[in-house]
Amino acid sequence: PSPPFLSMIKVVLIGTGKVAKHLFKAFYTSKQIELVQVIGRSKTSLLPFKELVDTSTNYKKIEDADIYIIAVSDVAINAVSEQLKTNKKFVVHTSGSTPMKSISSAHRKGVFYPLQTFSSEREIDLNEVPFCLETQYKEDYRLLQSLANAVSEKVFSINSEQRKLLHLAAVYVNNFTNHMYFQGNKYCEEAGVPFNILAPLIIETAKKIEELSPYAAQTGPGRRNDKDTSKSLEGLIGDPLQKDIFALVTKSIENTYDQEL
Amino acid sequence: PSPPFLSMIKVVLIGTGKVAKHLFKAFYTSKQIELVQVIGRSKTSLLPFKELVDTSTNYKKIEDADIYIIAVSDVAINAVSEQLKTNKKFVVHTSGSTPMKSISSAHRKGVFYPLQTFSSEREIDLNEVPFCLETQYKEDYRLLQSLANAVSEKVFSINSEQRKLLHLAAVYVNNFTNHMYFQGNKYCEEAGVPFNILAPLIIETAKKIEELSPYAAQTGPGRRNDKDTSKSLEGLIGDPLQKDIFALVTKSIENTYDQEL
Repeated sequence: PSPPFLSMIKVVLIGTGKVAKHLFKAFYTSKQIELVQVIGRSKTSLLPFKELVDTSTNYKKIEDADIYIIAVSDVAINAVSEQLKTNKKFVVHTSGSTPMKSISSAHRKGVFYPLQTFSSEREIDLNEVPFCLETQYKEDYRLLQSLANAVSEKVFSINSEQRKLLHLAAVYVNNFTNHMYFQGNKYCEEAGVPFNILAPLIIETAKKIEELSPYAAQTGPGRRNDKDTSKSLEGLIGDPLQKDIFALVTKSIENTYDQEL
Repeated sequence: PSPPFLSMIKVVLIGTGKVAKHLFKAFYTSKQIELVQVIGRSKTSLLPFKELVDTSTNYKKIEDADIYIIAVSDVAINAVSEQLKTNKKFVVHTSGSTPMKSISSAHRKGVFYPLQTFSSEREIDLNEVPFCLETQYKEDYRLLQSLANAVSEKVFSINSEQRKLLHLAAVYVNNFTNHMYFQGNKYCEEAGVPFNILAPLIIETAKKIEELSPYAAQTGPGRRNDKDTSKSLEGLIGDPLQKDIFALVTKSIENTYDQEL
């Protein structure tokens, strides 16, 4: 049950990429949020939004709102925040790797970081997505929290320092893990075996850590310090960079369980 | 619907570890399989089985069966197969990384490799687990296939060459992936944030590749060739080995999408 709102939270969304699209969908259907406007770089990028909400490519025509959400690429966040002429607005970005202070000091700053991987091809239930919030001022935190609660059950207060480490952790469990899948896919192709033979293993590996810590969940030759098997597997790898990665990750696993053996 | 059997498949299970326990449970409840005996190294290791089935620590007392399944550690497979005195029995091992020829030539050889990660703490539905089969003789393949079909819907013919590559792929998507989770956990602890904040991201990362190839599913700074963000994240890592792994995996992702940018 959501808390009662005297008035809807007015939001202007700046950006038209993957994160913006996912936020748009959740905001648009929320009864607690009034999506006032979407600002985009080009008319083409605004096409998916223009039937449903006011859109503009002109920062001078920006509407009045309680929260301005900058959902653009990390490098553009500062420049975009500088474009917002009206001072002392509450302006947040959605980036995991960008400190709050990147936002122009003309504004009250904040961060509204959804900790998830977004692709245009996949629907995401934002309700399950952890939102990591940070604000410059306490009063703004309550407002941002209300916004997050309107779309998700999982809301966390995370400062810029914590968010950097969290983003690093996310790179490991998402970006690096997916690259491990990519390598697995490559060896399946080499063996002439369909990649989906690994699907149950991949899902079980992810689900296992709902019950066990990653430390306890570890299996395989590295964990057993079975160097013969590891060497024999490494021998199947042709590419020198991949050989190095295999050897170093194996070593890292062996080191982790060194004391145990 | 299972095919009709004139008689049950008689199985002797050798080994009492994680794989043996998971196989035991599925065999014991199958109407198509008669679990004749479990052979173990010690009386203690046989305790979980002895109320339900004949057990022995003595290879000389081994019962007659259609299939002898060696579910022991990789290094012990050959020695155990040598212990089976009766010649020309159908003897299979359950290892991903061991060639079929490791089994003593006194027997008809085979492999019965369940492609999954087994922990004693987790229940596994074997029905969803891909079984990778190989046999020396064609007639034995049909029997092994019937055994696999009795416990799983997913049965594949995989030769020793393919299985080596498949095992390498499994090390990436399971062992290495879990170690990425371990690193992520470490940085969450450093940030003072509960690790389960990453659970939705971890599950989505795994589920995403049911629809998208790992190549298409990749996101993050490596994929965007965003070297500033990668360098800044690498700067958070203290341990030299972990720094190297971060740099090399990032480089590998960058190389993968090099042509695209």
